[in-house]
Amino acid sequence: MTKDPHLLWGGRFAEPMDPRLDRLNRSLPADRRLWREDVATNRAWVAALEAVGVLTGAERAQLEDGLDAVAAQLEAGAAERADDEDIHSLVERLLGEVVGPLAGKLHTGRSRNDQVATDLRLWTMRAIARLDGALAALGRALIAQGRAGLDVLMPSYTHTQRAQPVRFAHWALAHVWPLARDRGRLEDARRRASVLPLGSGAIAGSGFSVDRVGLAARLGFAAVSENSIDAVGDRDFAIEAVFAASLAGMHLSRLAEDLVLFSSAEFGFVKVAEPFTTGSSLMPQKRNPDALELVRGRSAQLLGRLVGMMAAMKALPSGYQKDLQENNAALFETLDAACAGAELMTGVVQGLTLQPARMAAALDAEMLATDLADLLVRGGRPFREAHELVGALVRRAEALGLPIHRVPAAEAAALSPELPEALGRLGDAEAAVERRRAAGGTARAAVEVQIDAAAALFAA
Amino acid sequence: MTKDPHLLWGGRFAEPMDPRLDRLNRSLPADRRLWREDVATNRAWVAALEAVGVLTGAERAQLEDGLDAVAAQLEAGAAERADDEDIHSLVERLLGEVVGPLAGKLHTGRSRNDQVATDLRLWTMRAIARLDGALAALGRALIAQGRAGLDVLMPSYTHTQRAQPVRFAHWALAHVWPLARDRGRLEDARRRASVLPLGSGAIAGSGFSVDRVGLAARLGFAAVSENSIDAVGDRDFAIEAVFAASLAGMHLSRLAEDLVLFSSAEFGFVKVAEPFTTGSSLMPQKRNPDALELVRGRSAQLLGRLVGMMAAMKALPSGYQKDLQENNAALFETLDAACAGAELMTGVVQGLTLQPARMAAALDAEMLATDLADLLVRGGRPFREAHELVGALVRRAEALGLPIHRVPAAEAAALSPELPEALGRLGDAEAAVERRRAAGGTARAAVEVQIDAAAALFAA
Amino acid sequence: MTKDPHLLWGGRFAEPMDPRLDRLNRSLPADRRLWREDVATNRAWVAALEAVGVLTGAERAQLEDGLDAVAAQLEAGAAERADDEDIHSLVERLLGEVVGPLAGKLHTGRSRNDQVATDLRLWTMRAIARLDGALAALGRALIAQGRAGLDVLMPSYTHTQRAQPVRFAHWALAHVWPLARDRGRLEDARRRASVLPLGSGAIAGSGFSVDRVGLAARLGFAAVSENSIDAVGDRDFAIEAVFAASLAGMHLSRLAEDLVLFSSAEFGFVKVAEPFTTGSSLMPQKRNPDALELVRGRSAQLLGRLVGMMAAMKALPSGYQKDLQENNAALFETLDAACAGAELMTGVVQGLTLQPARMAAALDAEMLATDLADLLVRGGRPFREAHELVGALVRRAEALGLPIHRVPAAEAAALSPELPEALGRLGDAEAAVERRRAAGGTARAAVEVQIDAAAALFAA
Amino acid sequence: MTKDPHLLWGGRFAEPMDPRLDRLNRSLPADRRLWREDVATNRAWVAALEAVGVLTGAERAQLEDGLDAVAAQLEAGAAERADDEDIHSLVERLLGEVVGPLAGKLHTGRSRNDQVATDLRLWTMRAIARLDGALAALGRALIAQGRAGLDVLMPSYTHTQRAQPVRFAHWALAHVWPLARDRGRLEDARRRASVLPLGSGAIAGSGFSVDRVGLAARLGFAAVSENSIDAVGDRDFAIEAVFAASLAGMHLSRLAEDLVLFSSAEFGFVKVAEPFTTGSSLMPQKRNPDALELVRGRSAQLLGRLVGMMAAMKALPSGYQKDLQENNAALFETLDAACAGAELMTGVVQGLTLQPARMAAALDAEMLATDLADLLVRGGRPFREAHELVGALVRRAEALGLPIHRVPAAEAAALSPELPEALGRLGDAEAAVERRRAAGGTARAAVEVQIDAAAALFAA
Repeated sequence: MTKDPHLLWGGRFAEPMDPRLDRLNRSLPADRRLWREDVATNRAWVAALEAVGVLTGAERAQLEDGLDAVAAQLEAGAAERADDEDIHSLVERLLGEVVGPLAGKLHTGRSRNDQVATDLRLWTMRAIARLDGALAALGRALIAQGRAGLDVLMPSYTHTQRAQPVRFAHWALAHVWPLARDRGRLEDARRRASVLPLGSGAIAGSGFSVDRVGLAARLGFAAVSENSIDAVGDRDFAIEAVFAASLAGMHLSRLAEDLVLFSSAEFGFVKVAEPFTTGSSLMPQKRNPDALELVRGRSAQLLGRLVGMMAAMKALPSGYQKDLQENNAALFETLDAACAGAELMTGVVQGLTLQPARMAAALDAEMLATDLADLLVRGGRPFREAHELVGALVRRAEALGLPIHRVPAAEAAALSPELPEALGRLGDAEAAVERRRAAGGTARAAVEVQIDAAAALFAA
Repeated sequence: MTKDPHLLWGGRFAEPMDPRLDRLNRSLPADRRLWREDVATNRAWVAALEAVGVLTGAERAQLEDGLDAVAAQLEAGAAERADDEDIHSLVERLLGEVVGPLAGKLHTGRSRNDQVATDLRLWTMRAIARLDGALAALGRALIAQGRAGLDVLMPSYTHTQRAQPVRFAHWALAHVWPLARDRGRLEDARRRASVLPLGSGAIAGSGFSVDRVGLAARLGFAAVSENSIDAVGDRDFAIEAVFAASLAGMHLSRLAEDLVLFSSAEFGFVKVAEPFTTGSSLMPQKRNPDALELVRGRSAQLLGRLVGMMAAMKALPSGYQKDLQENNAALFETLDAACAGAELMTGVVQGLTLQPARMAAALDAEMLATDLADLLVRGGRPFREAHELVGALVRRAEALGLPIHRVPAAEAAALSPELPEALGRLGDAEAAVERRRAAGGTARAAVEVQIDAAAALFAA
Repeated sequence: MTKDPHLLWGGRFAEPMDPRLDRLNRSLPADRRLWREDVATNRAWVAALEAVGVLTGAERAQLEDGLDAVAAQLEAGAAERADDEDIHSLVERLLGEVVGPLAGKLHTGRSRNDQVATDLRLWTMRAIARLDGALAALGRALIAQGRAGLDVLMPSYTHTQRAQPVRFAHWALAHVWPLARDRGRLEDARRRASVLPLGSGAIAGSGFSVDRVGLAARLGFAAVSENSIDAVGDRDFAIEAVFAASLAGMHLSRLAEDLVLFSSAEFGFVKVAEPFTTGSSLMPQKRNPDALELVRGRSAQLLGRLVGMMAAMKALPSGYQKDLQENNAALFETLDAACAGAELMTGVVQGLTLQPARMAAALDAEMLATDLADLLVRGGRPFREAHELVGALVRRAEALGLPIHRVPAAEAAALSPELPEALGRLGDAEAAVERRRAAGGTARAAVEVQIDAAAALFAA
Repeated sequence: MTKDPHLLWGGRFAEPMDPRLDRLNRSLPADRRLWREDVATNRAWVAALEAVGVLTGAERAQLEDGLDAVAAQLEAGAAERADDEDIHSLVERLLGEVVGPLAGKLHTGRSRNDQVATDLRLWTMRAIARLDGALAALGRALIAQGRAGLDVLMPSYTHTQRAQPVRFAHWALAHVWPLARDRGRLEDARRRASVLPLGSGAIAGSGFSVDRVGLAARLGFAAVSENSIDAVGDRDFAIEAVFAASLAGMHLSRLAEDLVLFSSAEFGFVKVAEPFTTGSSLMPQKRNPDALELVRGRSAQLLGRLVGMMAAMKALPSGYQKDLQENNAALFETLDAACAGAELMTGVVQGLTLQPARMAAALDAEMLATDLADLLVRGGRPFREAHELVGALVRRAEALGLPIHRVPAAEAAALSPELPEALGRLGDAEAAVERRRAAGGTARAAVEVQIDAAAALFAA
């Protein structure tokens, strides 16, 4: 009586599905990538059904062999040519083609609701591991560039205005720690994803008392879900993974932005390697850092995907609703895109060529104004007054068209008698970075500690 | 010297593109759907180049024939098998295979920056027309159901609590007017999209004084862009179209939500036709309104796409940046998805079966409380007091476990002497809907006016 | 029996509101700013009630005088000290204190649902006019700077890499046209907001046949709503206004980003006037373009507000739901913030000091590579070959450490015999900008046309 | 020379701030709520400055006393009347009014950049604890209602269509586990927030070698930041907290949605207590579940705030940028709003009255269709066939207008000979829920285990 031999639910229906519904309802184009997880889930379920007596040992063996054969077909691309409703329907149909009516026992005591939740969690756990690896590789690339640039000085910037001198290593490491946090968030997301929904049925649990703890162990889950309604309607694990990926994307976009600036003609601090640039179809001289822009632009799309997923949950009744299906493509695309972005940035970072001379040329004297004020403080001045005095000196220097250390001593002394001597002891950028010895500071020793800590955390 | 024969920009490059960049940079999988627009743009450009003497008449004819041949190949699916950087590179390569080195003259005086902006605008204008048509069809379906349900009464709801009786037609039309606004927004978006960027080059205009007004006329644009920097870096037209589509999606989600409730066992006001429902792989009795949920869930994804596009624009320097490329897939998917959603809802609405008896059964007496207060007002009571009195009557009725019109006259009179008589004149739900005769109200005549106005606006 | 004398709905209630609900439910802190609109709406309603006989002429006059008195109190800050449920309750209470029980007739035949929709539309229409004015002023400031910088040449950028020379005026105008589109969108939003909901009651229309067309005329609306359910549940007008404001915010962020770069030490193209910068509490030399960053950061918040409003509509049943109340603060804040941002940017733009020497110094020879290729095209070379040749020249120049026009003629000729002569005819940046004479191009005449067109559009 | 005595940075400035900048720049209205954290940070910093010799013991004591006095003023509302640039400027100014010029030593070796990051982290850690407490209380309220409703049966729903019978306790607990995950995410966010930025200066570290580990211990941080650039430019901690709050908001919205449906006249499963409802200004009979709708609507705004914060980070250069300031209000509002929402829902849940008779009446026979299929499976039928057969029975019953267990035995047997006997053994809803004994299922024993596990996790 079923209208379509691939459907898992035709019995009570008299009319075929409208093609307009079919177009939106058919999820195979998106969820076919879950085939490995679906086969694994089926394999575990077969064992569980044998344990409760729904299958004999021989039937189980036959179904396991059948699933092997199905997996081989899927590996060879069977899902790409299929037009089943979803991956679960496809696997059951293919299994039926291999083992006959026995395949009809596979879906006993379960629903696609608990099955897809299980498949998605397995996929998410693996995708998180993949993204973690990509972020770790990017971290190592930054650390390696940092080590190489330990003795290269450059301006740091706040408000895109020159602030104080730092080591290039310090800048590079500033982009490593966000990745460390990303990895922490991903690990937390993975842990929370590691909860088995299978055995929750459509919403009210399974009619067969399957050993859910055993199922979890077999599939690599750390725990079993505690409530069947929640188990089939929850997508926190997907949203949390996408959030973590999206925030990682924001970090990549900040690194990209720094490098877009630094590789401009005006800054000229780094060169992006040719293989990570493209040209213009019109302007023959162009070599554009497209890699950076694609990563930057993509981070916005990741945020959009997160919004789509979270907005879909707003005001959704508890339990399974079909709205959830629309979130799957967003999950897949976001994790993939974050991973591809991290891999691309790793290549960019590895290919950077530093331009120490351009960086050194950008270290103007005013960047030591804070050090000058600090020297006055060490002589007893309250900082607020020292800041005011040095500010006045900067203003005077600007009026004279001179750097602060070239302001005539008399002019400086007129502002405050301590200034000329303090200017004499000010030293250069190297002296300034070495003055910042506290943890997290720019002194060589502090940066070395920092690099070692990061390297330990990002060891392959 | 070019590393890849399909690239339009190899001359100054010594090294091939890194595969990680290639993966994100290659936009053909998304922009191949622009092939019709790209061929049209090229055809117009060829004419413009002839007019400024870059091409002879014979060359133009040869290129036009070549473009015809290329279009035929693309129609036959050539873009699906290609691995060029983008649709523009593909078209130029295919043209070269047809006409030889002459194809190398095609890209004179323009850039992919102005070309893709032109293609995207053409595509958007067409996609808007398509979505407008789909929304119009949905509007007509709602109007038709409204006409059929002109004399069917049902509760209206605020806060999902029964409010006052309305005609089913009034409910159906309540979902038509949002579509009318959507169509207005789409028309405004189309009008603003109808501005030709071609001739803006990469950013600073074309080195050849092509007739841009003529180009616009040939391609169906209403105006030419006023500033080349803005022309290549602007994506307002795409964002505005996606916003309009996304807001339309919200309207569809509200209609879907109403119908999810109305088709539940508890409300039972309508039946969704079988072809727009699916079953459960576990529960044999189920017939779920998946069509409604897919439309509802999808509306969240449309919002996400809008966010991705707008976030990509945040803090983007003026002019063309590669980040813009990431927005194209979002544009395509959103317009497609909104259209598919509207088409699906049209089917759902056409297939609805009303259950007038269930609606009538839901029209409880308390829904006439406002009419009762209005009657007291007509007798001279200030509304605020009338409201208070009727509220007290409702409370009393609830305590007695009776509907308000069954409260004993003595009890009612104890609250206020006018109440028994007013209750006697209250009438039924039909009387109540007929009392609301002002424009936009529920009286039969007012609803007929409304239906006629909507029908005129949504005429095919 | 009412628990709180300010409530408009106590009659059927026996228990007071829980303080936790009161905290979220009380909207007066946000909607008190609607007081002008609410008084105006009440005034119009009083006239309409007289026309249908609910009020006598004397009562109407008394209520109008009372509303005058209430308006005076509100003007003096009465709403700031009040703790009523919302602005409508407050106005009715204050009116009652002035005119006594007659105030109880005010709310006849209407609901807060149609009243708040009316107030919000009036507010939105006025806020749009305010924002339009602020954007227009910014446009005029940009046009004025453009006129002043008509003969100042600077690099244009794509991918934050130098592209081709342009006039400063051309850059400034590139930020004017997006504002023109914003203003068009705002005008469309205003037009669609200009529809009167009053007379729609809570959901099913008014029980009194008020003259809605007359009400609309009196309040300045262009039309009346067609369906009462839609009229009370629709917030498209607010969302559309917020979208337009949010997209304008994105445009401001792009202008801000350009100026952040241009005012950096490395670019040095403009100086931001001191009153639009702030200092550092630590670094005495700092002068940061905080105005630009605040505008840039705020644009992200505007997008967030839009998302909040649209997500609130997802899956909301038709008609009025209390969820809508949460959108009001977002509407108010977004329009205010966009306006404040535009006003601030106007000051920044007016205070800019151009640094033509720094711009000129950034115009390197490679920026004429396209012009060189175009010269080869004019000599008969297909552009694709010309592009390739010039690309090779750029590569050779880079290897030699020379600008392209300093490559020895023999070296250039080795790449192609036409190159030396073309290099000789290449000219300078001025020559290059003058070559782009088509509409929207960089030639002086084209830019003058552009400025005049913009000035006409943005005339005060 | 400072233009405004409250500014911390006037020295190098000659002109006063433009009022348009002042309006957006002045953050005191938002950040004054950080006063407790700012005083605590100052107190710790004073001790650190003494340890490095910038302050004498006596000066430290004097500053500590001064900070006590300042705290007392702020407790009394001093910040509400002030117009300083921000909370840091205000505290330093007030301190100066108490202790004189010595206050000018307070800001030595630090910047507002590291100070605000420290204050915000302290505030976030406390706000997380507050929200965790509110979610825990809501969890306990749900568990208590669950215990009370252990033996009350109701339909569970998928797709808003009746699915299978469950215990009311099972439904209530389905909303507890999401809260448990929320609390886990909040705890992870708190842990990652517990990293001290102080001592990072403006961007390059402090010029004084303060003991940062000691500072962290004193302020209750678990670790110190590793890189000064990252420390001042990172807002992950705020975004992660807002994400966790926003996802919690989504969970509240799903609970709200269930209760909106269940408290409708059509479902009638629960009554919302009067103190959590409001009335209509027009319709005297109305009692609306506004509490639920406000929570539902607010969840959308929380998502919007998250988007604003994340979009602000997109493409932001590393280190401190003023854009970050715009995120603070979003942080404050989101945590407050999530907390208020959870508190309100706790009241709603505690006040619910169950309507067991309405729930029982909704348990139709078709909800046992899965159990019937399972019975056939136990008789040897493959599930796929059993599903098909029961589906056909449902269709037949529908055609006959009968519930499935009333289909004449002959009719049932015509579909399959096993059906009549299986129907005879089917039992009632109680039998069905007891059949689901696996972990997470609906059997009484399983639900008791679940309740105990949740109670342990949510113990006060």
